[in-house]
Amino acid sequence: MVAKKRGLWLVGARGGVAATVAVGLAELARAGSEAATVGLVTESPLLAGPDFPSWNQEAPWSSWVLGGHEVRAGTLLEAARELERQNGALPVGLADRHATTLDAIDRRIRPGVRFRSGTAIDALTPGSPTSSATPRALVEQIKADLIAFRESNQLDQVVVAILSSTEPPTPADTLPTTWDQLNPLLDRAESCPLRASSLYALAAIESGMPLINFTPSLGASCAALEERAVACGTPLAGRDGKTGETLLKSVLAPMFAKRALRVESWVGHNLLGNRDGAVLADPDNKRSKIDSKDALLARLLGYAPQSLVSIEPIASLGDWKTAWDHVHFRGFLGVPMTLQFTWQGCDSALAAPLVLDLARLITLAEERGEAGPINALAAFFKSPQGAVSDDFGVQFERLRAWVSGLERSSVP
Amino acid sequence: MVAKKRGLWLVGARGGVAATVAVGLAELARAGSEAATVGLVTESPLLAGPDFPSWNQEAPWSSWVLGGHEVRAGTLLEAARELERQNGALPVGLADRHATTLDAIDRRIRPGVRFRSGTAIDALTPGSPTSSATPRALVEQIKADLIAFRESNQLDQVVVAILSSTEPPTPADTLPTTWDQLNPLLDRAESCPLRASSLYALAAIESGMPLINFTPSLGASCAALEERAVACGTPLAGRDGKTGETLLKSVLAPMFAKRALRVESWVGHNLLGNRDGAVLADPDNKRSKIDSKDALLARLLGYAPQSLVSIEPIASLGDWKTAWDHVHFRGFLGVPMTLQFTWQGCDSALAAPLVLDLARLITLAEERGEAGPINALAAFFKSPQGAVSDDFGVQFERLRAWVSGLERSSVP
Amino acid sequence: MVAKKRGLWLVGARGGVAATVAVGLAELARAGSEAATVGLVTESPLLAGPDFPSWNQEAPWSSWVLGGHEVRAGTLLEAARELERQNGALPVGLADRHATTLDAIDRRIRPGVRFRSGTAIDALTPGSPTSSATPRALVEQIKADLIAFRESNQLDQVVVAILSSTEPPTPADTLPTTWDQLNPLLDRAESCPLRASSLYALAAIESGMPLINFTPSLGASCAALEERAVACGTPLAGRDGKTGETLLKSVLAPMFAKRALRVESWVGHNLLGNRDGAVLADPDNKRSKIDSKDALLARLLGYAPQSLVSIEPIASLGDWKTAWDHVHFRGFLGVPMTLQFTWQGCDSALAAPLVLDLARLITLAEERGEAGPINALAAFFKSPQGAVSDDFGVQFERLRAWVSGLERSSVP
Amino acid sequence: MVAKKRGLWLVGARGGVAATVAVGLAELARAGSEAATVGLVTESPLLAGPDFPSWNQEAPWSSWVLGGHEVRAGTLLEAARELERQNGALPVGLADRHATTLDAIDRRIRPGVRFRSGTAIDALTPGSPTSSATPRALVEQIKADLIAFRESNQLDQVVVAILSSTEPPTPADTLPTTWDQLNPLLDRAESCPLRASSLYALAAIESGMPLINFTPSLGASCAALEERAVACGTPLAGRDGKTGETLLKSVLAPMFAKRALRVESWVGHNLLGNRDGAVLADPDNKRSKIDSKDALLARLLGYAPQSLVSIEPIASLGDWKTAWDHVHFRGFLGVPMTLQFTWQGCDSALAAPLVLDLARLITLAEERGEAGPINALAAFFKSPQGAVSDDFGVQFERLRAWVSGLERSSVP
Ligand SMILES: NC(=O)c1ccc[n+]([C@@H]2O[C@H](COP(=O)([O-])OP(=O)(O)OC[C@H]3O[C@@H](n4cnc5c(N)ncnc54)[C@H](O)[C@@H]3O)[C@@H](O)[C@H]2O)c1
Ligand SMILES: NC(=O)c1ccc[n+]([C@@H]2O[C@H](COP(=O)([O-])OP(=O)(O)OC[C@H]3O[C@@H](n4cnc5c(N)ncnc54)[C@H](O)[C@@H]3O)[C@@H](O)[C@H]2O)c1
Ligand SMILES: NC(=O)c1ccc[n+]([C@@H]2O[C@H](COP(=O)([O-])OP(=O)(O)OC[C@H]3O[C@@H](n4cnc5c(N)ncnc54)[C@H](O)[C@@H]3O)[C@@H](O)[C@H]2O)c1
Ligand SMILES: NC(=O)c1ccc[n+]([C@@H]2O[C@H](COP(=O)([O-])OP(=O)(O)OC[C@H]3O[C@@H](n4cnc5c(N)ncnc54)[C@H](O)[C@@H]3O)[C@@H](O)[C@H]2O)c1
Ligand code: NA
Ligand code: NA
Repeated sequence: MVAKKRGLWLVGARGGVAATVAVGLAELARAGSEAATVGLVTESPLLAGPDFPSWNQEAPWSSWVLGGHEVRAGTLLEAARELERQNGALPVGLADRHATTLDAIDRRIRPGVRFRSGTAIDALTPGSPTSSATPRALVEQIKADLIAFRESNQLDQVVVAILSSTEPPTPADTLPTTWDQLNPLLDRAESCPLRASSLYALAAIESGMPLINFTPSLGASCAALEERAVACGTPLAGRDGKTGETLLKSVLAPMFAKRALRVESWVGHNLLGNRDGAVLADPDNKRSKIDSKDALLARLLGYAPQSLVSIEPIASLGDWKTAWDHVHFRGFLGVPMTLQFTWQGCDSALAAPLVLDLARLITLAEERGEAGPINALAAFFKSPQGAVSDDFGVQFERLRAWVSGLERSSVP
Repeated sequence: MVAKKRGLWLVGARGGVAATVAVGLAELARAGSEAATVGLVTESPLLAGPDFPSWNQEAPWSSWVLGGHEVRAGTLLEAARELERQNGALPVGLADRHATTLDAIDRRIRPGVRFRSGTAIDALTPGSPTSSATPRALVEQIKADLIAFRESNQLDQVVVAILSSTEPPTPADTLPTTWDQLNPLLDRAESCPLRASSLYALAAIESGMPLINFTPSLGASCAALEERAVACGTPLAGRDGKTGETLLKSVLAPMFAKRALRVESWVGHNLLGNRDGAVLADPDNKRSKIDSKDALLARLLGYAPQSLVSIEPIASLGDWKTAWDHVHFRGFLGVPMTLQFTWQGCDSALAAPLVLDLARLITLAEERGEAGPINALAAFFKSPQGAVSDDFGVQFERLRAWVSGLERSSVP
Repeated sequence: MVAKKRGLWLVGARGGVAATVAVGLAELARAGSEAATVGLVTESPLLAGPDFPSWNQEAPWSSWVLGGHEVRAGTLLEAARELERQNGALPVGLADRHATTLDAIDRRIRPGVRFRSGTAIDALTPGSPTSSATPRALVEQIKADLIAFRESNQLDQVVVAILSSTEPPTPADTLPTTWDQLNPLLDRAESCPLRASSLYALAAIESGMPLINFTPSLGASCAALEERAVACGTPLAGRDGKTGETLLKSVLAPMFAKRALRVESWVGHNLLGNRDGAVLADPDNKRSKIDSKDALLARLLGYAPQSLVSIEPIASLGDWKTAWDHVHFRGFLGVPMTLQFTWQGCDSALAAPLVLDLARLITLAEERGEAGPINALAAFFKSPQGAVSDDFGVQFERLRAWVSGLERSSVP
Repeated sequence: MVAKKRGLWLVGARGGVAATVAVGLAELARAGSEAATVGLVTESPLLAGPDFPSWNQEAPWSSWVLGGHEVRAGTLLEAARELERQNGALPVGLADRHATTLDAIDRRIRPGVRFRSGTAIDALTPGSPTSSATPRALVEQIKADLIAFRESNQLDQVVVAILSSTEPPTPADTLPTTWDQLNPLLDRAESCPLRASSLYALAAIESGMPLINFTPSLGASCAALEERAVACGTPLAGRDGKTGETLLKSVLAPMFAKRALRVESWVGHNLLGNRDGAVLADPDNKRSKIDSKDALLARLLGYAPQSLVSIEPIASLGDWKTAWDHVHFRGFLGVPMTLQFTWQGCDSALAAPLVLDLARLITLAEERGEAGPINALAAFFKSPQGAVSDDFGVQFERLRAWVSGLERSSVP
């Protein structure tokens, strides 16, 4: 049996997460690079054994080909070197070791589309004019790039992963709730409530390519596009990768609830120095992220304590996210207590392996004929589509059950 | 139908946890004291609903009578006032509000027994001679006190809770593994490997009174006594209440495992100023606690990172435990990261509601005819008897399933 | 020789700091209350000895009488009890112990004036109309109250301390720089750039009563009023008491400078739950505080790192200020490092003793015939008037030299 | 005028601090390497200006030649590369950039002597026999190496810096207090209370070469050797470089004292993963360091709070020292408060520039004809010889006054 050949299409292909995905995949293909598997859930003992897919036989890392869309100039190699210099966000020497591979990927990167992306993202590509094409024409242009990638590389499956800068939020009440209502709005830029991330999402959906939205941008997280995905038979996973502070919240808040301790206030400050942080300095774009981070507390606790989440761009920290959280709670008889934590994580190194895991997992959904939001993947996201619980422990058990084939996952 | 009358017998009846149990129970019986239910798992929405017992109908807090054993002089009211003064370990005014109730309990407190309890515990009662009675005679003396408590208060059920100071550890290889081997050793002080906590445990077991061991002392945590409990039909729950740093470990370590992040080192320092801390200043007694705290990390992660746990008596902190944990871990491609947390909790206020919850829950086991270690109660303990998992999330789901009657819990 | 009788007039006389001053002064007069002297610099060994005034002989705490202005309803006893309940901001029992004394002070509290105080302060006294009097009339009204206090209590000296809620900032360019320019503007409300704090300040200055401005409000911190103070012979000390995070900055930033370590970024988050915090929730009022906290970093380091200061009202924390600071710096060869600290202080208990110290110290200035800004008192303030250095160590040496009489302090 | 040529002799020449000194000095000689001057006090604006030496004219970094003693095998280049790999303790690429320079220094490194150095240090050079020479013979051997270094490199001045692993402590009561008593003990190994660090110190003293003892080992920190240094005209600076947690203590403890806040307890935990940490894992060697770190608290505060200092070797942290300090203190009326800090510093990068500063500064002492302990250098040490104050701010002012020539410094 010949192993399948798979493609992973990265939207935001020269960003920090994308560059780490690229270097990491190259490193995984190298013999004996044990450190590369750290952080990969599909490589961990918890998803291994007779009940689970033998990924390394059926979907080895070497069977994946990368390509993508990007709006910025520059090369992937430059992006990787920048991560090395940023306080060791990539271990020293890896960028150069895989320079040839990175160059090859670079040649498969196509110009991305900007559409209602907001001024912060426009500022990444100064001077570059916004296209005057209709949203529908942009979708078609993206689809053409996706199909060309599949064909020229003779791929059996292609996964699309949105890793581009966070867009401003899209108010729920501007979004039609059915595909029939949304569809005609794509014909005129002025009438279209979607932004670029949703155009990428729609292109993937209509091409039948499973979609991962790792960003807080809307992507396919709305009823009309979920409906479209079910109709096209395309599985969806989103949105906003759960890598740091929110991951901690999703294990700590359930702990308070299960001990019946009363959370009075939860304050979280996030310092961040990379390009993602710079885009998030824009209040509009930041709103998307904060909404995504803040909402789940009340869902996890069953009531809403006073809460505060900030994201602050601190240039000198580079790719190192520092989060400080202060939780004030009461115990028996109302006695006040506190928990504080400081998380010092490297954002790209936390995100990239999850993107690779998701690529593997969503092809499983495709092979099982599941479509629309795959709620078994909720453990990976801050604002999971179709999730049944926000408790990370519960989400993880759901993931295991689904991967082992015990349960189906698509929502309908 | 007349509601049952229940007794809770506290070993270490004038300690910090016991005094908080006493004040808290009095407060719970008062109308409108909402703060009193904070921290009670059996009062939380997670254990409420049609599938769960209607505790407040069938086992209202007012149906419980307290008594206990204690080796120190003093009164329960003094112990409660001490907690108030210790930086607010009890809210101001509660001790005096319930002075009459506390006095009544005091009159039901009987002299405790010391047996191989170690020099730190002996130092709590200077000048008081150790009894020369045989271990078996001490067990009989305890049983007589327990039965007198049941009869003179006309109680339907009595639960025994060990809340006394931590004893030195008992090496596993000094303990016979069957009751037939252990039994004859009780006839001579010199040959008996057990300490006082296990004599209390045995007395409860042979009296058919469900036993809670909230301390790191051995109690009934050995094969011979578990066998005896099964034979006598007595349910067991132990050992070492999981209230602070270890509770956090039991949610955070699984998080690292489920993200495949590699923990390199986990250092935990615990500062503590109360009488418990003073006893734990003795290296022997501290050993019991540290073993209990440290062991579970390897079980939770699947491998043993470098680890360190300290407990340090810092007088000025009173009942306020401060724990600082530093976790050094690696992500994708080996990138090093850290998580630190500081936990500032009031130990007695964290422990007391769990003791009350356990009292309710273990009577449920008795009513269902379960005996020996009740593994569904693992979520409450650092070193749970008969537990199936050390992951707090998993333990809690097990608890819910058992309480709702879906599953039985006793090990055999 | 008969000891002098002194008055301390508190503007904001039922606030948290004022109530702590009142209870503390009562407690200091009690025999054997050693805890009361903690935090008093004038009682410390560093300001004791043959070179220093014998305060307790010449200016014993019992020689001070309190009075003040307040705009809110309520009593001082209520204010003190509120502090007790707020997580122990006052030790339990003190409010009631000194109830009679507090009542007596209450009878000496006069209605305060509001003038351009901002909406957040207006909200403290809902429904109460703003006076239509001219600024000059308000100053005269305040002076009348001050003089009545001095006369009816037969005081030898009166110190005025501004402890009222933080006002919005007053832009420097709206302030005339000489008294001759400022003076005529007091005749019409519309033309007057000053706010209430400066009217209080002017009243004290013109009454020859030494002034302490413990708040970030303008008070006498402008050239025109300093000129007026010199002319009237009144000593000034201000502004904004240095009690917590900023105190730490003023010892830590010099440490970085003296080790030639390069601070890249300094982020400080302050959580605060009392009435002061509530007023500071108003962006206008908060601006005054943040400006005061942030400016000194660049002065201390000699360059401006990226910096961020926030103040966030978190109701459940009561009078407990929690500050988290994250300092990112570089060492030799550019190696990046971090320092983080968490400060958990009780704001009123930190502030009140400094107010008492300042009262003692500024009478010394008066007795020595010094007038205008007393720069030797810089160690007490975030934005010191006339200071020579922002380094707390240097400021403290200056204080010692001045108190011991080695140096004069007034600026001109 | 021809600039002087200077030598810096490193004892422990392939250790982490020494390797960073070597790389840093090479980097400083390179044009345009601005990052290299970070952390150098003699390059900071605080020691610059008309009153201060023009170091870069009179004692440029390029005028220094390195050599040293070492007991371990290996090369300096390997040591430097190890630092690079250890989480970026040296910026990437520096070791290789200066490979030729490092090789040249390596050729000037001579075999060190071990004498009563303790088992942990012996374990660094497994299999290597301890010399049977008398202490005096070892001193002569060291002197011969020092003089050969001076002559073969035609050096005008040579400074000796002890940077070797921490030895076990030497009890004060085993040390004679005069040179006449100590001198004869050097003739027999069995009678000699000194360890290797003191033999190095004596050799430097008798060779008239200024001595820096950056370690907690005894070196010249005893009356007899200080007397000898005065007799030989040799300036001394020691002991134990103040780089991290203790530096913070020396600014924070004075802050508490100057605010009259009462420190109840001060707990400090130090995690450390490098070779220094491994040697400090030995309880004997650790004792030296802890004594040095702990003693100064009582001196700074004027009373001894409960205190605790630990040093724990955590391998995965490499050269990254993490210190967590928890200070529990009381304010006005006894209200309890806390300060916590976490310091994450790279030990070698903190130490190396201070060694270079000290080399410059101690030659100044020599040129001014000062001998014995130079107390103006106290700011650099945890246990300064002849210091007048432990307050870092005061020490720094003393340093400035001395460097600018206003004051002499030698003790007698
Ligand atoms: N790293 C994490 O831990 C993490 C976690 C959750 C979510 N995310 C999200 O992942 C995304 C990527 O993060 P990052 O750190 O790589 O950011 P980044 O800024 O380094 O990369 C984003 C890239 O997207 C490109 N881009 C922007 N708009 C585009 C468009 N319309 N089409 C194509 N390319 C476009 C940018 O030019 C940039 O190169 C962000 O939205 C971030 O919020 C990251
Ligand atoms: N509070 C927590 O968060 C927590 C968590 C887990 C375990 N524990 C354990 O619970 C126990 C009680 O803690 P505490 O804070 O109340 O301690 P404590 O020291 O305040 O109380 C213990 C009491 O037990 C009494 N005692 C000692 N030996 C006895 C004996 N042989 N018979 C009868 N009485 C005896 C002592 O006199 C004392 O009054 C300790 O073992 C502690 O380690 C507490
Ligand atoms: N506590 C600290 O550590 C600290 C440090 C520095 C500065 N300060 C400043 O001290 C001031 C007092 O702090 P607090 O915690 O007592 O605040 P608070 O809010 O408890 O008290 C302020 C009082 O001032 C009164 N007030 C407001 N406007 C007034 C006016 N125009 N005339 C008379 N009274 C008026 C209010 O009604 C209130 O009772 C604030 O400005 C605060 O920023 C406090
Ligand atoms: N780095 C800091 O922040 C700091 C601060 C204060 C003190 N110190 C002290 O500085 C010293 C050096 O620290 P490091 O991190 O470089 O340690 P290190 O272990 O990396 O280096 C010490 C070197 O000394 C060598 N050595 C041991 N005994 C010797 C002897 N008798 N003769 C010659 N060489 C010998 C060892 O082989 C080793 O190479 C230690 O004593 C440490 O405690 C360091
Ligand atoms: Na990133
Ligand atoms: Na206050």
